Amino acid sequence: VTDYLRTWIGSSDADHITIGGLDLASEVMGHFTLTELAFYLTTHRRATEAGRVLLDAVLVALADHGLTPSALSTRLTYTGAPEAPQAAIAAGLLGAGSVFLGPAGDTAQFLADALSAENPVGADEERLREIAFAVVEQLRATGRRVPGLGHPVHKVEDPRAPRLYELAAANGGVGPHLRLLQFVADANTELSGRRLPINGAGAGGAVLVDLGVPPSSVRAFVLIARTAGLVAHLAEEAAAPIGRALYAEADERSSRQNPAGFAG
Amino acid sequence: VTDYLRTWIGSSDADHITIGGLDLASEVMGHFTLTELAFYLTTHRRATEAGRVLLDAVLVALADHGLTPSALSTRLTYTGAPEAPQAAIAAGLLGAGSVFLGPAGDTAQFLADALSAENPVGADEERLREIAFAVVEQLRATGRRVPGLGHPVHKVEDPRAPRLYELAAANGGVGPHLRLLQFVADANTELSGRRLPINGAGAGGAVLVDLGVPPSSVRAFVLIARTAGLVAHLAEEAAAPIGRALYAEADERSSRQNPAGFAG
Amino acid sequence: VTDYLRTWIGSSDADHITIGGLDLASEVMGHFTLTELAFYLTTHRRATEAGRVLLDAVLVALADHGLTPSALSTRLTYTGAPEAPQAAIAAGLLGAGSVFLGPAGDTAQFLADALSAENPVGADEERLREIAFAVVEQLRATGRRVPGLGHPVHKVEDPRAPRLYELAAANGGVGPHLRLLQFVADANTELSGRRLPINGAGAGGAVLVDLGVPPSSVRAFVLIARTAGLVAHLAEEAAAPIGRALYAEADERSSRQNPAGFAG
Amino acid sequence: VTDYLRTWIGSSDADHITIGGLDLASEVMGHFTLTELAFYLTTHRRATEAGRVLLDAVLVALADHGLTPSALSTRLTYTGAPEAPQAAIAAGLLGAGSVFLGPAGDTAQFLADALSAENPVGADEERLREIAFAVVEQLRATGRRVPGLGHPVHKVEDPRAPRLYELAAANGGVGPHLRLLQFVADANTELSGRRLPINGAGAGGAVLVDLGVPPSSVRAFVLIARTAGLVAHLAEEAAAPIGRALYAEADERSSRQNPAGFAG
Repeated sequence: VTDYLRTWIGSSDADHITIGGLDLASEVMGHFTLTELAFYLTTHRRATEAGRVLLDAVLVALADHGLTPSALSTRLTYTGAPEAPQAAIAAGLLGAGSVFLGPAGDTAQFLADALSAENPVGADEERLREIAFAVVEQLRATGRRVPGLGHPVHKVEDPRAPRLYELAAANGGVGPHLRLLQFVADANTELSGRRLPINGAGAGGAVLVDLGVPPSSVRAFVLIARTAGLVAHLAEEAAAPIGRALYAEADERSSRQNPAGFAG
Repeated sequence: VTDYLRTWIGSSDADHITIGGLDLASEVMGHFTLTELAFYLTTHRRATEAGRVLLDAVLVALADHGLTPSALSTRLTYTGAPEAPQAAIAAGLLGAGSVFLGPAGDTAQFLADALSAENPVGADEERLREIAFAVVEQLRATGRRVPGLGHPVHKVEDPRAPRLYELAAANGGVGPHLRLLQFVADANTELSGRRLPINGAGAGGAVLVDLGVPPSSVRAFVLIARTAGLVAHLAEEAAAPIGRALYAEADERSSRQNPAGFAG
Repeated sequence: VTDYLRTWIGSSDADHITIGGLDLASEVMGHFTLTELAFYLTTHRRATEAGRVLLDAVLVALADHGLTPSALSTRLTYTGAPEAPQAAIAAGLLGAGSVFLGPAGDTAQFLADALSAENPVGADEERLREIAFAVVEQLRATGRRVPGLGHPVHKVEDPRAPRLYELAAANGGVGPHLRLLQFVADANTELSGRRLPINGAGAGGAVLVDLGVPPSSVRAFVLIARTAGLVAHLAEEAAAPIGRALYAEADERSSRQNPAGFAG
Repeated sequence: VTDYLRTWIGSSDADHITIGGLDLASEVMGHFTLTELAFYLTTHRRATEAGRVLLDAVLVALADHGLTPSALSTRLTYTGAPEAPQAAIAAGLLGAGSVFLGPAGDTAQFLADALSAENPVGADEERLREIAFAVVEQLRATGRRVPGLGHPVHKVEDPRAPRLYELAAANGGVGPHLRLLQFVADANTELSGRRLPINGAGAGGAVLVDLGVPPSSVRAFVLIARTAGLVAHLAEEAAAPIGRALYAEADERSSRQNPAGFAG
């Protein structure tokens, strides 16, 4: 009988390490970038050259956005536990949920669900437009937001989105999920009377699904990018700390006000 | 006066996102791999072509090692909280401490400390050998282990280490920290009478310091690689789960034994 | 203008620490148990004597359930990072999501929503029965599970549930949410033709809402209990470790099988 | 042969849950407070009545200290992932390391090491004074800080420390570790010429060791208290959020300054 304790991803013996069926030392090291390996281990397929360009474009697009809640958590955790950098990175990742970064995965799943009954490759413009209207109307009827649209800072245009369309067009063509997202944005404008731009997370999620990342894995996949950004914040925090001063300011400002009778 | 709340890493306004002083959409997307961006944001320097090859070689070398404690924690966390993939990845990263993966950073710091008073570039063979003996003797005198040596599975040779030396030689030359690590291994063999192989984490840490990653950032830097491996484990867990069966087996085996009177 | 950076929970100056408006040293230490303080800081109300008994009964009921995925993650994280106990505890808590422990909060919210339009205190038996049938039918119509019912191990009866009913009856009476949960279980039996027992998490969540914990805070509140259980697992892991042997077994069993061609 | 997969802490079968050898429903629920259960599961001993008072006094003393880095991380994580309260609590706990809260465990270990070769119960005043001078001199000789002394806010006196001495005296007497800590503080004043007050974490750690918590478990034990505080912060954040405004302020202040050329 087969043991349930098994994995395709990695194994080892005294002399070898195997990763996705390849010999790590001779077949992976020197041959794969980290991005290519991440894609290979998640999808069991090697990225094409065009795919590699797009994968890296998505990942660098989502690596950092300044002093986000995630970056602040990483830095504040370092303030209390400088001996455990893995804890500081983990604390930052924990905030990459439904509000920040998670929309990449939500958009991926939303677009994949919309195309699941179709033949994605053959979908013509008219059919994509119909699908877009149908799914946006459905969301609006139940009072839900349209995944992949809108950004609190980039209210007119999120510069990452048009750049991803441009890079996709130049590297194998704009795939069906990314095309559908544009129709979704147009349908939303028409149905709501208010234009919301495609956001970077949403466009990134659409590209990843077009490249073959399972929609249910997109939320996790983009965490690789955010880890890279948080590692940089951690290095900067060690060299030019803000965590302790932020604590002091928050403590001072909040302690000063309590007499005013705030009751939570 | 300057506000302490500042960062070089990222900032944005309504129309632009800036990453490390570069325009994200036009200067980073399509131009940097994730590995190159991680290096740039952490060191403020662009990787050379040779450096890029080595960075990726180190990262893919440390991305996965099968059903490690980290991979198991990621999968078990998914079993309980499938709606929060960021929590599952974070749970896996939390085990990348002093025992697993952390040795990359510890070796980096150890080698950097050993060379700190020297001119690393000019260090000749004889001087490196002397330094190696001195630091190994110092560790042995205080009963401490030599960072970067030994592996519970790869007892004779960790296949990642010679491959990193080979790739370094072919891409700009073996740097002083990686060279020192070889002398350290030799000194350890001579002084202890027992040969311990250079491990992959140690060699990886040495390469990263040679490339310019601050030693204190190496522990965090290699977490980018491990995140990639854990993302693959999470995708596989969703498709072919082992977490629930592992729980059932552990619960069954442990509950069966309690009558025997184990007292913790 | 009021600063948004404020909290009712805690503040301090050079000589005093204030917690929930009370002087920590003279009014809290020696006067509150941790359970009472947790309730007070979360609800802004002091627990009654009867409430205190029930709060502790719920918390001890949910503190531990053996080698759960959470306990295993805590122990495996300790294996890799023994120097960071807070990381091991955090790794265990991360698995307390929708599948394990989270049902306490889901049941609390479900019951509170069902009673939200009613006068909970005045609700008579007949009205509770009607509500129970209505909400169970609604869940069944949309193919969703009924929160608070069923347990993978305790298939006939979860021993924690009847005990909580017993303790509630003896300490101020069974509150409306806990009463509704019994009607929900009965309605589910009648409508599905299959009896599912009330589980400990569900009954615990109902008690907490009856006592005044906001339904949206129940998921977090029960984490205090689980932290206590995980602390014990961590202490036991340090004294009688299983993490490394579990890793070795998982690695050995999975590496042995790869030749069979498992493809994830 | 005995299976390594075993635990004293908890087990279950279809009808029973056993915790520390006791039947959970009939012997623990209704009989133990959470504090008592935490102590029992960690030490395998039941707390005395006096011990229970002290345990709760230590835990409530360390539950909260206002808008600490931990509280801020919990709140910022909720901002990004409101659907995963366990992630927000975990993020806060991750900062309870060597700088904040961890000193409770470090002091516990330091005092236990100092007394390890002695008969703690029989130690007379003079002997404790000698030990205190010896260990403080040893720390000073190697440039290390004395655990348990000093606080950034409570520079003259941490109000929790004298209160713990008072409660200990009234509940079974001041134990040897807590007594030694006072001698350590006195020795430090005499040797350094500068008085540092005993801090709350240090005094709390000393009390826990006196009560029988293993010194190596103290760091984790006090996390139970901090979880309670963070749960309250999470409830308050849901009702009166500060996370998003803090992000907006940090983003705005940091983005405004980048032109000034800060280079990390």
